Amino acid sequence: MREVAVIGVGMTRFGELWSQSIRDMFAEAALKAMDDAGVKKIESLYVGCMSSGLYTAQEHLGSVMADYIGQRGAAAVRVESACASGGQAVRAAFMEVASGACDIALAGGVEKMWDAEDSSMVLATASDQEYEAYSGVTFPGLYAMMARAYMERYGLTREELAAVPVKNHKHAINNPHAQYPQPLTIEGVLKASLVADPLRLMDCSPISDGAACVILCPLDKAKQYTDKPVKIVGIGSASGPIALHDHADFTRLDAVRLAGERAYKMANVSPKNISFVEVHDCFSIAEIIVAEELGFFEYGKAGKAIANGAGTYGNGVVINPSGGLKAKGHPVGATGVAQVIECTLQLQGKAGKRQVENARYGMAQNMGGSGGSSVVHILEAQ
Amino acid sequence: MREVAVIGVGMTRFGELWSQSIRDMFAEAALKAMDDAGVKKIESLYVGCMSSGLYTAQEHLGSVMADYIGQRGAAAVRVESACASGGQAVRAAFMEVASGACDIALAGGVEKMWDAEDSSMVLATASDQEYEAYSGVTFPGLYAMMARAYMERYGLTREELAAVPVKNHKHAINNPHAQYPQPLTIEGVLKASLVADPLRLMDCSPISDGAACVILCPLDKAKQYTDKPVKIVGIGSASGPIALHDHADFTRLDAVRLAGERAYKMANVSPKNISFVEVHDCFSIAEIIVAEELGFFEYGKAGKAIANGAGTYGNGVVINPSGGLKAKGHPVGATGVAQVIECTLQLQGKAGKRQVENARYGMAQNMGGSGGSSVVHILEAQ
Repeated sequence: MREVAVIGVGMTRFGELWSQSIRDMFAEAALKAMDDAGVKKIESLYVGCMSSGLYTAQEHLGSVMADYIGQRGAAAVRVESACASGGQAVRAAFMEVASGACDIALAGGVEKMWDAEDSSMVLATASDQEYEAYSGVTFPGLYAMMARAYMERYGLTREELAAVPVKNHKHAINNPHAQYPQPLTIEGVLKASLVADPLRLMDCSPISDGAACVILCPLDKAKQYTDKPVKIVGIGSASGPIALHDHADFTRLDAVRLAGERAYKMANVSPKNISFVEVHDCFSIAEIIVAEELGFFEYGKAGKAIANGAGTYGNGVVINPSGGLKAKGHPVGATGVAQVIECTLQLQGKAGKRQVENARYGMAQNMGGSGGSSVVHILEAQ
Repeated sequence: MREVAVIGVGMTRFGELWSQSIRDMFAEAALKAMDDAGVKKIESLYVGCMSSGLYTAQEHLGSVMADYIGQRGAAAVRVESACASGGQAVRAAFMEVASGACDIALAGGVEKMWDAEDSSMVLATASDQEYEAYSGVTFPGLYAMMARAYMERYGLTREELAAVPVKNHKHAINNPHAQYPQPLTIEGVLKASLVADPLRLMDCSPISDGAACVILCPLDKAKQYTDKPVKIVGIGSASGPIALHDHADFTRLDAVRLAGERAYKMANVSPKNISFVEVHDCFSIAEIIVAEELGFFEYGKAGKAIANGAGTYGNGVVINPSGGLKAKGHPVGATGVAQVIECTLQLQGKAGKRQVENARYGMAQNMGGSGGSSVVHILEAQ
């Protein structure tokens, strides 16, 4: 298997991008990434997107985007794994470059969510429709059940849970692409509207428009394009039960643990080697459970640790230096690619005021549904 | 790059499968393929599907299907390229096995179309929504324009065009999985309802439910599973303009030509080496243009050649021995995988009454939209 590196990145701001269509957003991100890498020709294009059919009545995004970015003729395909679509697009592009089938691949992600009449209905198609969505359960409801189970078992308080979005908003202040780069307080979380008890509005990642792209090439050719390639040293992907009621334990995410184990094994590193991690905090409870499944905390300990100051600068692994899904925004198909971009910028020393110092390894963890799928990347500075 | 082989195949009958849900169909095909290969554990799963969001309100099919076929934990993702989704799923699985990242991959395709209220609206999401579908053009309309341009330029008559579906129905009579294994006459085509002039109902592939799966593994391990592995020797994938009005020539499909050239180059063979080809005859005119773009006929010659008896047994390359999309059926996400299954069965000598004798190389050509994407596989008997 050939070694593979990220040689260029580009993304839109995340937010309410009313003036840009889905193809406009993707083109902005793709052309920025191509400029960053200094490449003019893409051999193979992967577009991560959860639900362009329901959101914008446009499938066939591989063709649309190859055409719109001036790369007609390139191989092009869409990859979908609900909210893990972006991470899976990066993984698919990695496989093609690793196999030797192509040298220059673009992996992007995009979602245009604000145009939809009922975004919750669209997002519910990531759950088990026949057994969950048709019964009236939405994603805040599913994660609320996970939060309730975790709080009961481990004695996590509502105030402690609020520390997760407060930390992530603090990080996002330094991220120029973030949808909500505003400070948030514990009191602000507790006073926000109740969405699905115990989760309040400030526990929930927002509806977002946005796109993100990276360019991959073989590591041994990367120096032709950049002085600072970042190597993808580990990838793990796993599925779990599509329905929450099939989880053996509501406080666990088996797909995340498996994907993490596979990525650590491939990279030959352990959690203690990771300086920072972008995790899929679609809801505040998700960040806590994911941080445990990835081995950064013992089971039951992450929530209280974060409430006591873990997960931010100067206190061990930095969790979501970008601001995470909650504060940076969560255009679902773009999220996994944006996580890989954050890892790349951090490992290139280009993260500005949110730079994690002396980082050698960074991790990106992307997730679909209530843990139905997850993909984990480990990147290494060169 | 490791060499890759198909070691097992399975599919449902194509048709109106009212008693089976999308997951039921996929599970039937997947478990048959696993039985055929004698494998119990899948490492990585690729599900080709065009529009499960709009058809069945279920995205996240990788997770759903891994779960439903008893393979929780496997890596799993959906691949989409409109009607070329199935072929792209096979290509993606090929890349992962070729890279060395896994040994046993399942590539499947599925579409549940009959449950939709307006299948034409769903299919239109494979065209350029903003410039084509929103202006009222449907796929029969797009291919009708291609047919009109071809007939005008090359003098193909309406009667000659009808020879394509007549041939394909003749082939489908011997295919137990075909949706319409009934004979069709030239007169029957000419008397069928007009859909979009000059195309009539019998020029158009049907609405279909169905699923198809193949199991891939490294060629050097294939004999552990089957006495008759079939090697994938060439793959080509390409995009073209998403909108028909951006084609430089309405009688050409650039993505098909490019994908074919790439597959021939990788396999180091030429059209004269190919004994049979499964082509994407979504409309009768498509088979004619595709057969020319793949190099089996000169431009402008395929239509008259087929009308004069080419494309069937005993007269050069056999085109669509399975019956093709028109007669076998076209559950869009499943079609590309079913084409690879037909190639596999033919090259294993298991195609029964529709067996092409002494075949060494077979080809499968799958297409999205009006040529927005195409993927071509060349398979070789071992």
